[in-house]
Amino acid sequence: MAVQSKFNVGPWKVQGKVDYQKLISEFKVRAVDSKIKLRLQRIVGTPHLFFRRDVVFAHRDLDLILDDYESGRGFFLYTGRAPSMGMHVGHLLPFFITKWFQDKFKVNVYIQIADDEKFLSGKNYSLNDIRKFSYENILDIIAIGFDPDKTFIFQDSEFVAHLYPLALRIGKSLNLSQLRSVFGFVGSTNAGLLAYPLLQIAAAMLEKRRCLIPAGIDQDPYWRLQRDIADELGFYKAAQLHLKFLAPLTGIEGKMSSSKPEGAIYLTDGPKEVKRKIMKYAFSGGQPTLDLQRKLGGDPDVDVSFSWLSFLFEPDDQTLGRIRQEYRSGKILSGELKDMLIARLNDFLSVHRSRRDDAKSLVNTFKATGELSAKALTTIHE
Amino acid sequence: MAVQSKFNVGPWKVQGKVDYQKLISEFKVRAVDSKIKLRLQRIVGTPHLFFRRDVVFAHRDLDLILDDYESGRGFFLYTGRAPSMGMHVGHLLPFFITKWFQDKFKVNVYIQIADDEKFLSGKNYSLNDIRKFSYENILDIIAIGFDPDKTFIFQDSEFVAHLYPLALRIGKSLNLSQLRSVFGFVGSTNAGLLAYPLLQIAAAMLEKRRCLIPAGIDQDPYWRLQRDIADELGFYKAAQLHLKFLAPLTGIEGKMSSSKPEGAIYLTDGPKEVKRKIMKYAFSGGQPTLDLQRKLGGDPDVDVSFSWLSFLFEPDDQTLGRIRQEYRSGKILSGELKDMLIARLNDFLSVHRSRRDDAKSLVNTFKATGELSAKALTTIHE
Repeated sequence: MAVQSKFNVGPWKVQGKVDYQKLISEFKVRAVDSKIKLRLQRIVGTPHLFFRRDVVFAHRDLDLILDDYESGRGFFLYTGRAPSMGMHVGHLLPFFITKWFQDKFKVNVYIQIADDEKFLSGKNYSLNDIRKFSYENILDIIAIGFDPDKTFIFQDSEFVAHLYPLALRIGKSLNLSQLRSVFGFVGSTNAGLLAYPLLQIAAAMLEKRRCLIPAGIDQDPYWRLQRDIADELGFYKAAQLHLKFLAPLTGIEGKMSSSKPEGAIYLTDGPKEVKRKIMKYAFSGGQPTLDLQRKLGGDPDVDVSFSWLSFLFEPDDQTLGRIRQEYRSGKILSGELKDMLIARLNDFLSVHRSRRDDAKSLVNTFKATGELSAKALTTIHE
Repeated sequence: MAVQSKFNVGPWKVQGKVDYQKLISEFKVRAVDSKIKLRLQRIVGTPHLFFRRDVVFAHRDLDLILDDYESGRGFFLYTGRAPSMGMHVGHLLPFFITKWFQDKFKVNVYIQIADDEKFLSGKNYSLNDIRKFSYENILDIIAIGFDPDKTFIFQDSEFVAHLYPLALRIGKSLNLSQLRSVFGFVGSTNAGLLAYPLLQIAAAMLEKRRCLIPAGIDQDPYWRLQRDIADELGFYKAAQLHLKFLAPLTGIEGKMSSSKPEGAIYLTDGPKEVKRKIMKYAFSGGQPTLDLQRKLGGDPDVDVSFSWLSFLFEPDDQTLGRIRQEYRSGKILSGELKDMLIARLNDFLSVHRSRRDDAKSLVNTFKATGELSAKALTTIHE
């Protein structure tokens, strides 16, 4: 990776405790400050939880996105994922904020299912396995509540012909040295991965308007390259919202990983499994004994249950403030915090499961027949 | 390029006089010997001119192709080109021999129009320019007389989605080091060209039978990689026929090039243009004066007109032998050899122009509705 530090953030891995201030300076992105939050508030009312809780910690050109909105030119959103066997709660972050922008600004959303990247970067999955993952992941994404006529969900392996001419132009504008310096490609890197970035960059150019990409900052190398060549190819530089990673249950380090299942809550986990995992694994900021906890209080800043409530499951800012204060003072115990999270999480998952069932009848709408999807499938991007 | 020598033969350039014996040993291919010619003769009768005149000078696994034919398993043919503004006579060589194999063995032919490669390796053409070239080149190819129900002509940018899953598997099996050593990729190589070989290799795996590829030996690096990974992916190693390059008019060196128009006869050149070019440019093996020519004779081995008659325009072996002997003895003069070539070439081009006009109504058959094409367009290759 070009960006090396004690934490390792690149498109294919995230390890160690993430220092977000350092990321802002290393990646040369801008902190989401009160000025831009106030501007958002002025335009659409109270900003999303992720802005209020600094889950969206950095951006590029969000101000230009708002300029484009106010000038009437508009913008579009793009996000996506490399499909995995099961999605966990942390995977939903970019989709939540993407849906919020769609709701507030009434804009088009393009969601890329990078089945190709998954195949190329994974070890053991066949393309058929990954097609199954893609279908299951698409159900979870639809369940978030996107507008079926303003959202197009595409799998690279199915949509590639539509992106290919644009990918060729991108490919002609980037060289091996650039890819090596941004992605750290080495001799043993497989030839498919060398090519994959062209498709991910192309997806940020699906309209001749500015694209806003909510994503983990580990995806930044793609957008850096997109911004290097956008002008030359007659497109806007992609704007970005960089999201923090939801901490794994096991501690406020790294990002939740499907390959470490004890740290993750899957969207298909039932109530008992959720309770078991949180009770067993959720790292606590509490004291060793009840007495000490009552006397010294807990540390919400390292308590994973508190972190999850803050990121996702306690929407009311005042209530969250009260919980923080009472946990710190010793009034709320770690077990009570866990109970709170278990209840909220199971409520969310219960609704999600039901919406996910309903999503089965909508897959074709989002992939082919919705207004935006139908248009996308008759467009070749150049 | 991995293969360096005084002549430079790689997929993107051919310079200098080609030493075919040296190529055979450097590329580790097999000479087309009398044994395999006799076997061909036994199966289908007199072999094509290109076998009789050593235009097909080397092969890989042609014996296995014939085994597969005789055992009833069968094989298929694949060839193609990067489309150019105009095709010249030299471009037709692989198509002539491909058609002959189709006629004799009644097998499927896949013809790849590498519009992507042309865009990525060329300097100044837009994708739209290249689409026009592709259409024009396809007319010339159809004019050669392929079977419309056993031939599929595809442009990469249109067919990519059908090849992509297979290209991903190929991409996962090859790494950057291999591509660098075979193609000589360097830091400034554009990212699109890094990816392109995956599609060209995929095209040699369009059926689960052995593929025979008639092509210039400059394309060999692709097939070497295909052969490295074929077993692993469950396909046959591609067999090849390596063709000599038709000499440019200006001398028996290198291969005819669209970028040196004085050395090439284009398929759209009219009779006067053909006469002008041959009279002006065709390198002669004759003597400086008529007297010396009559006395010393000419050298057919460096005379381009003789070479073209031998490669393409004098089908009768005895007649060619007589011409060679009479030119060498001084009985036939260089001008007479040129006149002979002009007449034969114009006859050929006159028929070609007419067949090319007829081809306009067949483009859709070869690209979409013919028996093989229709099947290809409903197949995703994995």
